[in-house]
Amino acid sequence: MHIAVIQGPNINMLGTREADVYGTATMGSIHEQMRADAGTGHTIAFFQSNSEGDIVTAIQNLRGKTDWLIINPAAYTHTSVAIRDAILAVKIPVIEVHLSNIFKREEFRHRSFVSDIAEGILSGFGADGYRMALSYIRSRGGRS
Amino acid sequence: MHIAVIQGPNINMLGTREADVYGTATMGSIHEQMRADAGTGHTIAFFQSNSEGDIVTAIQNLRGKTDWLIINPAAYTHTSVAIRDAILAVKIPVIEVHLSNIFKREEFRHRSFVSDIAEGILSGFGADGYRMALSYIRSRGGRS
Amino acid sequence: MHIAVIQGPNINMLGTREADVYGTATMGSIHEQMRADAGTGHTIAFFQSNSEGDIVTAIQNLRGKTDWLIINPAAYTHTSVAIRDAILAVKIPVIEVHLSNIFKREEFRHRSFVSDIAEGILSGFGADGYRMALSYIRSRGGRS
Amino acid sequence: MHIAVIQGPNINMLGTREADVYGTATMGSIHEQMRADAGTGHTIAFFQSNSEGDIVTAIQNLRGKTDWLIINPAAYTHTSVAIRDAILAVKIPVIEVHLSNIFKREEFRHRSFVSDIAEGILSGFGADGYRMALSYIRSRGGRS
Amino acid sequence: MHIAVIQGPNINMLGTREADVYGTATMGSIHEQMRADAGTGHTIAFFQSNSEGDIVTAIQNLRGKTDWLIINPAAYTHTSVAIRDAILAVKIPVIEVHLSNIFKREEFRHRSFVSDIAEGILSGFGADGYRMALSYIRSRGGRS
Amino acid sequence: MHIAVIQGPNINMLGTREADVYGTATMGSIHEQMRADAGTGHTIAFFQSNSEGDIVTAIQNLRGKTDWLIINPAAYTHTSVAIRDAILAVKIPVIEVHLSNIFKREEFRHRSFVSDIAEGILSGFGADGYRMALSYIRSRGGRS
Amino acid sequence: MHIAVIQGPNINMLGTREADVYGTATMGSIHEQMRADAGTGHTIAFFQSNSEGDIVTAIQNLRGKTDWLIINPAAYTHTSVAIRDAILAVKIPVIEVHLSNIFKREEFRHRSFVSDIAEGILSGFGADGYRMALSYIRSRGGRS
Amino acid sequence: MHIAVIQGPNINMLGTREADVYGTATMGSIHEQMRADAGTGHTIAFFQSNSEGDIVTAIQNLRGKTDWLIINPAAYTHTSVAIRDAILAVKIPVIEVHLSNIFKREEFRHRSFVSDIAEGILSGFGADGYRMALSYIRSRGGRS
Amino acid sequence: MHIAVIQGPNINMLGTREADVYGTATMGSIHEQMRADAGTGHTIAFFQSNSEGDIVTAIQNLRGKTDWLIINPAAYTHTSVAIRDAILAVKIPVIEVHLSNIFKREEFRHRSFVSDIAEGILSGFGADGYRMALSYIRSRGGRS
Amino acid sequence: MHIAVIQGPNINMLGTREADVYGTATMGSIHEQMRADAGTGHTIAFFQSNSEGDIVTAIQNLRGKTDWLIINPAAYTHTSVAIRDAILAVKIPVIEVHLSNIFKREEFRHRSFVSDIAEGILSGFGADGYRMALSYIRSRGGRS
Amino acid sequence: MHIAVIQGPNINMLGTREADVYGTATMGSIHEQMRADAGTGHTIAFFQSNSEGDIVTAIQNLRGKTDWLIINPAAYTHTSVAIRDAILAVKIPVIEVHLSNIFKREEFRHRSFVSDIAEGILSGFGADGYRMALSYIRSRGGRS
Amino acid sequence: MHIAVIQGPNINMLGTREADVYGTATMGSIHEQMRADAGTGHTIAFFQSNSEGDIVTAIQNLRGKTDWLIINPAAYTHTSVAIRDAILAVKIPVIEVHLSNIFKREEFRHRSFVSDIAEGILSGFGADGYRMALSYIRSRGGRS
Repeated sequence: MHIAVIQGPNINMLGTREADVYGTATMGSIHEQMRADAGTGHTIAFFQSNSEGDIVTAIQNLRGKTDWLIINPAAYTHTSVAIRDAILAVKIPVIEVHLSNIFKREEFRHRSFVSDIAEGILSGFGADGYRMALSYIRSRGGRS
Repeated sequence: MHIAVIQGPNINMLGTREADVYGTATMGSIHEQMRADAGTGHTIAFFQSNSEGDIVTAIQNLRGKTDWLIINPAAYTHTSVAIRDAILAVKIPVIEVHLSNIFKREEFRHRSFVSDIAEGILSGFGADGYRMALSYIRSRGGRS
Repeated sequence: MHIAVIQGPNINMLGTREADVYGTATMGSIHEQMRADAGTGHTIAFFQSNSEGDIVTAIQNLRGKTDWLIINPAAYTHTSVAIRDAILAVKIPVIEVHLSNIFKREEFRHRSFVSDIAEGILSGFGADGYRMALSYIRSRGGRS
Repeated sequence: MHIAVIQGPNINMLGTREADVYGTATMGSIHEQMRADAGTGHTIAFFQSNSEGDIVTAIQNLRGKTDWLIINPAAYTHTSVAIRDAILAVKIPVIEVHLSNIFKREEFRHRSFVSDIAEGILSGFGADGYRMALSYIRSRGGRS
Repeated sequence: MHIAVIQGPNINMLGTREADVYGTATMGSIHEQMRADAGTGHTIAFFQSNSEGDIVTAIQNLRGKTDWLIINPAAYTHTSVAIRDAILAVKIPVIEVHLSNIFKREEFRHRSFVSDIAEGILSGFGADGYRMALSYIRSRGGRS
Repeated sequence: MHIAVIQGPNINMLGTREADVYGTATMGSIHEQMRADAGTGHTIAFFQSNSEGDIVTAIQNLRGKTDWLIINPAAYTHTSVAIRDAILAVKIPVIEVHLSNIFKREEFRHRSFVSDIAEGILSGFGADGYRMALSYIRSRGGRS
Repeated sequence: MHIAVIQGPNINMLGTREADVYGTATMGSIHEQMRADAGTGHTIAFFQSNSEGDIVTAIQNLRGKTDWLIINPAAYTHTSVAIRDAILAVKIPVIEVHLSNIFKREEFRHRSFVSDIAEGILSGFGADGYRMALSYIRSRGGRS
Repeated sequence: MHIAVIQGPNINMLGTREADVYGTATMGSIHEQMRADAGTGHTIAFFQSNSEGDIVTAIQNLRGKTDWLIINPAAYTHTSVAIRDAILAVKIPVIEVHLSNIFKREEFRHRSFVSDIAEGILSGFGADGYRMALSYIRSRGGRS
Repeated sequence: MHIAVIQGPNINMLGTREADVYGTATMGSIHEQMRADAGTGHTIAFFQSNSEGDIVTAIQNLRGKTDWLIINPAAYTHTSVAIRDAILAVKIPVIEVHLSNIFKREEFRHRSFVSDIAEGILSGFGADGYRMALSYIRSRGGRS
Repeated sequence: MHIAVIQGPNINMLGTREADVYGTATMGSIHEQMRADAGTGHTIAFFQSNSEGDIVTAIQNLRGKTDWLIINPAAYTHTSVAIRDAILAVKIPVIEVHLSNIFKREEFRHRSFVSDIAEGILSGFGADGYRMALSYIRSRGGRS
Repeated sequence: MHIAVIQGPNINMLGTREADVYGTATMGSIHEQMRADAGTGHTIAFFQSNSEGDIVTAIQNLRGKTDWLIINPAAYTHTSVAIRDAILAVKIPVIEVHLSNIFKREEFRHRSFVSDIAEGILSGFGADGYRMALSYIRSRGGRS
Repeated sequence: MHIAVIQGPNINMLGTREADVYGTATMGSIHEQMRADAGTGHTIAFFQSNSEGDIVTAIQNLRGKTDWLIINPAAYTHTSVAIRDAILAVKIPVIEVHLSNIFKREEFRHRSFVSDIAEGILSGFGADGYRMALSYIRSRGGRS
């Protein structure tokens, strides 16, 4: 299986950014761990950007080449219709992950433009959320 | 570790009830699988009720005896302040699980009285959601 | 045909409770009259409870055994997602009955969690509402 | 007793119009059936118009000459304060009938300017709704 | 000066309709009194209709022939954009009159599609409101 | 008859203040004209203040000594519950007057805490509004 | 092909009415130009009314006789559920045309009861909008 | 006098539950103190349940046997129409008590389905609230 | 202990003002009774004003000289941020008292700018509310 | 004349993306057809980007060099104030085009930050919308 | 130049009042510093009141005598239409100053009745805000 | 001290863009003036971009290298959660500057995602706003 992981704005700051909210793991260490978990049977690719447009392009490029997308759209979760449309355009099943529990935070973080088109949502499990998503994908297998 | 699993109203109908929304696994088979996953190192207890009050009482009874609570409040997710208060009263960390992706359904199912006091939320992973929650708890260990 | 009649909280107080709003007939006399109307060709069963959970269980128990459900969820009309879910789970056609015209009363009584999944709604006909529902069911015949 | 039946806009299209929503009975056949049900002891008069103003005038003309009004204001249900005012002006008891269950349809069809001044409401019983209203009126008798 | 008086739906019922809200004067007696007040120096024309479209047409016909319009749009006050547009099209200064104090009544009667394009508003003075409007117009003189 | 006229904040600036909105008449000239209109058969008293509390006290002092109150609460129209309560306390019938048409202005000027307890409202007739109110009172006579 | 053009209230005032908003072309000249554009291969029929009910009737009469409907419901765009229902009843594809750009105007003109059931919408092209709609219909051909 | 005290869900956890919000007194000690205060001239009965339905039944059973009801509906304050209806059915005067000041807490705790039908409300006085209610009842005497 | 009692606008009208809402006790008699209750061990001072600014000044003057403040801000409860700020500035514990049950009255009386910074709230106990507040203060003792 | 065509995010996916919503034409074929329509008398330039910032820059670069802008902001229609501001900054007349009828889709697609500053809007004509816009521009000629 | 500084309610408490929010400078020391900054070329006058009415009067008195007004309406910022109207009446340019950042505080402090008619707003700079406003005025010079 | 100035989309158009709203100074001249004001004791760096993502990256790059950030997020003020998160991630104190008074403009410009995490806000001072912010920073000194 081919699995893509897309990280939204400011995720590259993990480990240094508001550790009480987001934890102390860095983005690099999370990705390393996921690669280890994926094992040799699967390819896994990572992408991070602070730009909404670049994330849209990255999703478009997955079309026909990827079985699953794990995405943490971060701040764009709450404001981007463009990312939603890109997901709808490529028709790849999506798992939405949030490090923090977005329902414990500001009102404007409670709304997601991705949740209702996602296969499943994980929120508040910190860095573990990514691994849980990966484990779910592995048990479900490739898309038919 | 001691882990409790509480299931809300109509979950006892799983397997026969709207299979396109909730899948074909029965509640019994889900619980069996969880017991297997928990292994011998942990005790795991199950409770299901259609009554809001009985669920409140069940949560109260966990006080001081349980390390983690996995709860699927089902329909009471959206209407019960009493269950919320019971959770606050016993101070046990909670994982909220929903079989279906509640954000793909009616407007009134988008609001949860539990999400903002939960440790994490899993929504849309079907019967797998329970196992993912259990696996997260096992990797986190008992509460200190 | 098998017909079930479920009465929500406080309906057991009929005749003594706010007679200007609900009329002077008792629940017993209404049921007696319905049994007479049903005649010998049909079985008709009655259930009343003040407990949301017990009503949910009662609905679940109708599964596969009943052709029609006449329900007056009373106060739970406006607050219970659990009763809604139970109806969806058993897939029995439902007639919703209210003694008083709920639209003439407080704002919070204007919303029903049952109306949009009911076959039809009768509101404001007093005790006659039950008999009108029964007569409709008899003219429609059993579910195919 | 004198009974009036007023039908709002597009009801004259019944039978040809969106049969999955409104059924296949024509307005003519419904009226015929009602006349038969009314029997010889009662007079029953019918009126249909696509014009809000003509319906207002028709209601005004009932003043002092009619015991009951059965009305299906159709689209004007949701937009006409004028029809509401006409009903208040003539002080005739009203039964509101809708062929489809308006609560299962678009948001803007959930609001009625007539419901809170009606004696009772029937919604979702198809063509049977008119007959049930008539049967209720007959059992209640003339207004005192 | 030429003055037009347009009366909306159900105003023709005045005197018989909800006397506690609207008073006992008939529309005819109000108009007679206005004609007397207008005196010989002014022409005054009256129009009443229950039809929104006919009122629109009546307003269009005033174009270039009338100096002032006194209008009580009655129920259409709250629902008609068409009447608003007709007033904007003919550019005649308007005085809006309501018999009852609309702010003492239902919420939906608090909004007017005419008030913000009217010269002035009178609400709650009963039949006197028309005469006060006329007296204001007489003291102001014709439009320049 | 005894008539009181109470003017709210900034009305003392009339004639110099935003003449395009409020006209060029001064408060003094308006009061003079009203006194002339009242004639010898009636006493008429005037009060203006920029202080909400002083207006409340002035209204309290009218209790049992005044037949009618003409009030232009100006800016306090939209924010003062205290003035509303004072009016309710003294039980004197009130005519509410506004120089400008408040519905043509900012959103927050559309709400009045006085309108629903007033006998009538005049809005947009400039200085004439006061005289029209006075003329209405004279034709109605003293309170019984 | 048979094409119908229906014009709502006040469109008959075009050319004289608020020329800065609606332009100087008259309704007659627009229709003439459309007839010329339609050429000999198509029949084109025009209808204008200030009455909501008459427009509903006009739409009903098109059933089975017309391939396309070009409609400018004018003020009824924003308030008429009846016109919406008539369009749904006759199942003829509709192009909605507005002379002015309704999104540049008052809030209440932003909502249309027709847009979501129309094939396409043209707003803000002045009199050209009708011709653009016609040209689109000609290139699309008759309904199959 | 006969006085009933009904305690809602989780009140049985008092003393152990969130002491900073609810204080350290247990439910038992509160009841003991009230019994002492009531003295020998009055009977006082206590009831606690986590079940909405059981509370409804308990209120119904008070009918005709009790002079006053002191109720702390706890979480059901904000969600139960059924309890409201039971109170209306038995027509016993009610004092509503909350340990914490519900207005200092989450938005959803600000709404009460009991307040507008209660004789008085006490909120924020901790365990003292019950005694203050009892003292008020004693000074008022039995219901006539 | 030093206790201050501040009364808002129109409280000086008590006994004469809407007796069905506020009761027949005068402000003077309430204060007399409180002074008697306070006994010789405590000083108690009273202040009433219809002016928001004067109440703000009166609260400021309490700073460092008073142990408790009992306040009935009356109409200013719902509109005054200034009184709220004054209370925050002087840091004296506050009991908020309302004669009537504000939740039984108009919507705009349901909001209080004082409740969330008050120690406790009493609403609906009539004149007894003040004495209940005083009794609570006496049992709590002076502030430390 | 110089004409610019700007395409928003995901338009480059046309032909492969949700064909039932957006049709099967590719962006390339649409542009080719427009170039053919423009003929030799006009220059026409195309730009597509998934990046909001790049679109803003592209609009800025048109300043003083372009007579008309045809824009389909796609997902940014509903979220971008920056694109709106860029259009206001360059003062070039704009035609807004949407392939699908945005009013038939999700609620959040109904709002446009461009519509109220556009010359005209075309929505729901599929690929034809671009050509209709071009034809309109050609008949209107260059900006004066 | 003549400059006026008006301070709203509770500003006279500065230095003693919630120092963590408002800082430790007193109002007197702020004014002294401003007088020093103003130098000999300008006159500067100060006014503080807890009364809304007195502030309105103070603003009226500035008419024609002052070039600039620096105002911190404090609590009245959020509730006073009267102060807004006074500013509109005297037509003096206004700088609005807040010690604390009002957007970091309660929701009801986010709305200002002055901001949209002010020349500029300074919020959150503590006592420095006044001096920054003064320095801006000096660089802008007197009003022409 | 190290000071950063970040300018949002379209600020590079200053001087040519809507001069009545934004003034005639160019971005270049503003920056020159700020550099002059900063003097030799401080370094000051400028950045402008039309891209939300690039601004996020620019803010991230300031981490640990800058004492203060002056930002005018322009259109992104109202739509960008990503910029808000970047500011929270780098923990640099922020002054938010707007050239125009955003409260005098469209509703959607009233909301800022930055204001509640800023140290202070300046709005409506034109180009002077930047210098005032700089002067404030200089008087405050570096962050400790």
